[in-house]
Amino acid sequence: MRFIADVKNANAILQWDQETYLPPKGAQFRGQQISTLSEISHRLFSEDELGIILKDLLQKNDLSAEQKRNVERTNEDYLKNKKYTSGFVRKLSEQINKAFHSWIESRKQNSFSVYEKDLDGLIQLKRQEAEMLGYHKHPYNALLDEFEKGATVELLDKTFTNLLPTLKNLLDKISSKPQIDDSFLKQNFPKQQQWEWGMELIKNLNFDFQAGRQDISEHPFSVSFNPHDVRITTRIDEDDFGNMTWSCIHETGHALYEQGLPEEEYGLPLGEACSYSIHESQSRLWENNVGRSKNFWEHYYPILQKHFPSQFQNISLEAFYKGINKVEPSFIRTEADELTYHFHVYIRYELEKKLLDKTISTHDIPAFWNEHYKNLLGVNVPNEKKGCLQDVHWSHGSFGYFPTYSLGSFYAAQFFETAKKQILNLDKEIKLGNTISLLNWLRQNIHQRGKFYTSEQLCKEVTGSTLDVNYFTNYLLHKYTSIYNL
Amino acid sequence: MRFIADVKNANAILQWDQETYLPPKGAQFRGQQISTLSEISHRLFSEDELGIILKDLLQKNDLSAEQKRNVERTNEDYLKNKKYTSGFVRKLSEQINKAFHSWIESRKQNSFSVYEKDLDGLIQLKRQEAEMLGYHKHPYNALLDEFEKGATVELLDKTFTNLLPTLKNLLDKISSKPQIDDSFLKQNFPKQQQWEWGMELIKNLNFDFQAGRQDISEHPFSVSFNPHDVRITTRIDEDDFGNMTWSCIHETGHALYEQGLPEEEYGLPLGEACSYSIHESQSRLWENNVGRSKNFWEHYYPILQKHFPSQFQNISLEAFYKGINKVEPSFIRTEADELTYHFHVYIRYELEKKLLDKTISTHDIPAFWNEHYKNLLGVNVPNEKKGCLQDVHWSHGSFGYFPTYSLGSFYAAQFFETAKKQILNLDKEIKLGNTISLLNWLRQNIHQRGKFYTSEQLCKEVTGSTLDVNYFTNYLLHKYTSIYNL
Repeated sequence: MRFIADVKNANAILQWDQETYLPPKGAQFRGQQISTLSEISHRLFSEDELGIILKDLLQKNDLSAEQKRNVERTNEDYLKNKKYTSGFVRKLSEQINKAFHSWIESRKQNSFSVYEKDLDGLIQLKRQEAEMLGYHKHPYNALLDEFEKGATVELLDKTFTNLLPTLKNLLDKISSKPQIDDSFLKQNFPKQQQWEWGMELIKNLNFDFQAGRQDISEHPFSVSFNPHDVRITTRIDEDDFGNMTWSCIHETGHALYEQGLPEEEYGLPLGEACSYSIHESQSRLWENNVGRSKNFWEHYYPILQKHFPSQFQNISLEAFYKGINKVEPSFIRTEADELTYHFHVYIRYELEKKLLDKTISTHDIPAFWNEHYKNLLGVNVPNEKKGCLQDVHWSHGSFGYFPTYSLGSFYAAQFFETAKKQILNLDKEIKLGNTISLLNWLRQNIHQRGKFYTSEQLCKEVTGSTLDVNYFTNYLLHKYTSIYNL
Repeated sequence: MRFIADVKNANAILQWDQETYLPPKGAQFRGQQISTLSEISHRLFSEDELGIILKDLLQKNDLSAEQKRNVERTNEDYLKNKKYTSGFVRKLSEQINKAFHSWIESRKQNSFSVYEKDLDGLIQLKRQEAEMLGYHKHPYNALLDEFEKGATVELLDKTFTNLLPTLKNLLDKISSKPQIDDSFLKQNFPKQQQWEWGMELIKNLNFDFQAGRQDISEHPFSVSFNPHDVRITTRIDEDDFGNMTWSCIHETGHALYEQGLPEEEYGLPLGEACSYSIHESQSRLWENNVGRSKNFWEHYYPILQKHFPSQFQNISLEAFYKGINKVEPSFIRTEADELTYHFHVYIRYELEKKLLDKTISTHDIPAFWNEHYKNLLGVNVPNEKKGCLQDVHWSHGSFGYFPTYSLGSFYAAQFFETAKKQILNLDKEIKLGNTISLLNWLRQNIHQRGKFYTSEQLCKEVTGSTLDVNYFTNYLLHKYTSIYNL
């Protein structure tokens, strides 16, 4: 398993390089090299000999609970992997490469039609994948399960149906109040100064720069090659302060999880993150529950003011805090506030579901997108770049990924509430800029456990109950009641 | 073969990252990941099925000359590769990783003894390798052959025995003349300004930045992942102008070769460089025959003066040209002048030869080193960092590599002399800063041919005769006679 992990991690390095330092002409061969490594790791992970070993291990009675779990999870993944042919893996990887590059091009040209053909090829492969994997009731379930074991259309439909009216209600209340001024966030913030501020912030959040680094890329992401080499990237928008700062905190949240995984379990399930949604809970907990809280900025705002004296000297902490929490329907998911964010996710979820069961076709995407943004968020999408071309996920072949973002926020609220109960004076510590006790709590309760539990089991273990969306809605209600005087 | 090339190139990316951006704690897992990819490419390149296909292809009568050559060279490599066991490949790769890191540490501590044990382990593996590969007369021949097909102790002994007295004689003559002043090269040259100057220079030498990039590393090197992604690195010494500039030109010489290889032959011998010595001929031709010539600086010196006005405004072109060609015995190979350089190589050659046949042991290296530097170059090595710890090669497992550096200089002189005869007004073009006709000549005569010929065959094809060291000694004689008024 460690041998296979080496190949997968090597491939991750190629992908990191692709997004950070690859010269433009190198893209074609790089795609081929990535496909080759994907094919090799797939081949290795579907060797019959491995299946026999796993079968043997499953029948052993003398394994520790941890060993047993490693064997079970590995076996589940093995059986799933066996369903793919090597030919399909390579074809998918090549189609992803094609789609990725035509997505880049379509954004340059601000035209979905440039992307449509390659995306359609990819969607067809994903439908094929769902058939290969098998599913109960809905083909989308097969893909959802890859990102979140146990997630289904049925469950998610129910979750969103419960949640959205509450959010809509809250949004309406907020909309009836005077809007907050956040224009000070749209001043000019020079690149180098933003970079230095971001690096200081990340360092203070206990990201270990001896075991990781930050670079610049077109789209911020985090990736790990092992717990001692975890990389994050960011982008800097000189005219928008929020763009870099919270993406830094978000990616650091992911990275702290990866740096906290037990290295002795490298290559095994217990050395991996629990799930996508739990991963996202970590990034969102740091980005939002911590990074958009008043307590956090009590410590950091004076430091920020030193980095950008001319931009912030006349803005009070109170005004800053309100500005960074302004709620306003908008086009871009990654820039959305904590409330309207979930409408963005819901639209993507509905779209993917309908693409998978062929209720709509690839060609319908822009119209579907724009219509739902109008209906749900009340905004007119001005162009495709700010519409259905904004996310990289589909061009990476990631269908079924978006719902984990919402689940991540829900878990984050529940974890953070629990942490506040269990950590003495957490609020006070955060006010002093000290987040190490929170990190240690997360390390012990979540990071160090790897994939021992499923998301639901972990949530119960840590918080005493399975996922309860009320934690999230209460968190929002409490926050916005005070900010907007509801 | 393309599939295997993908794995090898992926591994090269991991190594590039290791030297440029790897966070310190990531070293251990990275070593393991590199070993795994080495093992995989070795496995793939020793599959029995491949041997059968190659045997079949060798018997075909309808192959083109190029196809035939691809099959023959692949088969040679295949048969050689089959001599290695997977276990040995992994062991070697792991020992290299160990030795590399203890070499780094030994340099920090300026102590050979920190490195000795791991180096010794590596030397023992290299002796084992020589036995596995088989050899005629001397075990070192097996290793030399890996870097330069056909090179032997016999041939190299003869070459150095002929060459060294001539060089010694020239060195004595130079030493009897007043020494040149090059103190202006040791002023302060700020990092950023050097970087910008280097980038401009590389660009003007027609390095394609759409198909490559330059980064910073501890030791300059070049590496290619395919003709559209060729990377070079440099290091900047603020107190030594020469350090970066000629290493930039040198690595660009390597990179131009790689960017000029036929991409349609990716993964096949005809898509690879001819040999290490021919590779080195390209870097040295650009670095020395072009980059240390008066003609070259007639164009570039005024530009350089604009980059560093305070440092160079009072230095004439003539003084600059003489300064950059100062001959003086010294400790560090990479900083040596074109004449004494070959004494450095000779000492390493003798040392490796004697390590391989056990005339001396690993423990004897520092004493042997210092004694020979004293005897041949007349210098007292002040410490091990400036002595036997200076080169990275052994810690990479590269024994038999150094002689290709000297061969590279000899080939460079012969190629450049031929180019001057065949390219109309080459001197004049270079004086105008125009090196594209030289590059095109190299592309056509050397780069585009890949591994179709051996070094010797290529040399004959391009220059009309096999390697003749007189081209090199005449070049030096001519150059230094004018510079030192001999």
